[in-house]
Amino acid sequence: MRVLGVDPGLTRCGVGVVEGVAGRPLAMVGVGVVRTPADAELSHRLLAVEQGIEHWLDEHRPEFVAVERVFSQHNVRTVMGTAQASAVAMLCAARRGIPVALHTPSEVKAAVTGSGRADKAQVGAMVTRLLRLDAPPKPADAADALALAICHIWRAPAQNRLQQAVALHASKGRTA
Amino acid sequence: MRVLGVDPGLTRCGVGVVEGVAGRPLAMVGVGVVRTPADAELSHRLLAVEQGIEHWLDEHRPEFVAVERVFSQHNVRTVMGTAQASAVAMLCAARRGIPVALHTPSEVKAAVTGSGRADKAQVGAMVTRLLRLDAPPKPADAADALALAICHIWRAPAQNRLQQAVALHASKGRTA
Repeated sequence: MRVLGVDPGLTRCGVGVVEGVAGRPLAMVGVGVVRTPADAELSHRLLAVEQGIEHWLDEHRPEFVAVERVFSQHNVRTVMGTAQASAVAMLCAARRGIPVALHTPSEVKAAVTGSGRADKAQVGAMVTRLLRLDAPPKPADAADALALAICHIWRAPAQNRLQQAVALHASKGRTA
Repeated sequence: MRVLGVDPGLTRCGVGVVEGVAGRPLAMVGVGVVRTPADAELSHRLLAVEQGIEHWLDEHRPEFVAVERVFSQHNVRTVMGTAQASAVAMLCAARRGIPVALHTPSEVKAAVTGSGRADKAQVGAMVTRLLRLDAPPKPADAADALALAICHIWRAPAQNRLQQAVALHASKGRTA
């Protein structure tokens, strides 16, 4: 299972590809950051994010795309750009028929460190260990993208079972 | 000057095309709503918005796209979807090299009614009058999209002059 994790942002959009299955050692396929200039027009920045994501999809052909779920309780100015960059990532995946999963920051932290309130350094350290890297990927957005991909690989079996159960329940309800 | 106005939203994305220049009667070229099902996955909804906007761009070939500037002080849940739908509209325009302008709701209201705090009915009534329609376009999102396009046609000369002045000042500063 090959997953592209996307930590959305306009200034720095973290991207990381991880391959593996739950219960086995994972492998990093690639990691990087898509950057757009802060002084460019918003529509041009979104276009640059699209081109960056398209490049990563072309290059690594992931089977799933995992994107950080954006909340608006934080910094109100940043969050709009984050929401818009995440929309571009989701759109690029949907256009290719690649399933998109959203994971919250605390789900991702809990998946890789065991605590939903872990800090950036802890997430970076665990990503480094789990992918057997020489050093934590920089910047933090790149490490976060890898953490998202790892989270998806580990959570996916449970999510799939849950979705199957819901679908079964719904179909039973309809035929009862 | 032909402008596509976009009132962004995931459930209903208003679209309206207006042709004209400031100081002359305006003409409506088309109006409608791009809808996506509330129970669909977010990535699929964004894809449906993209397909809808692409259709309007193909059909009407606007020279400018005017999108409502999204603020986050309102309903926090809705605003994320609105920000994401607006990102898709801006992206579609940028991909074709069509200039994108953002106008705030109060700029739009002030442009068409004279008051930045006008209500929906007032905006609908003025859009109807200015475009010489038989009745206000329904739903309100469609009327708002037309109001955005009208606002852009009327504000554009001033904005262009301002941008020219800023560019001139910047180039003078550089050669001084």
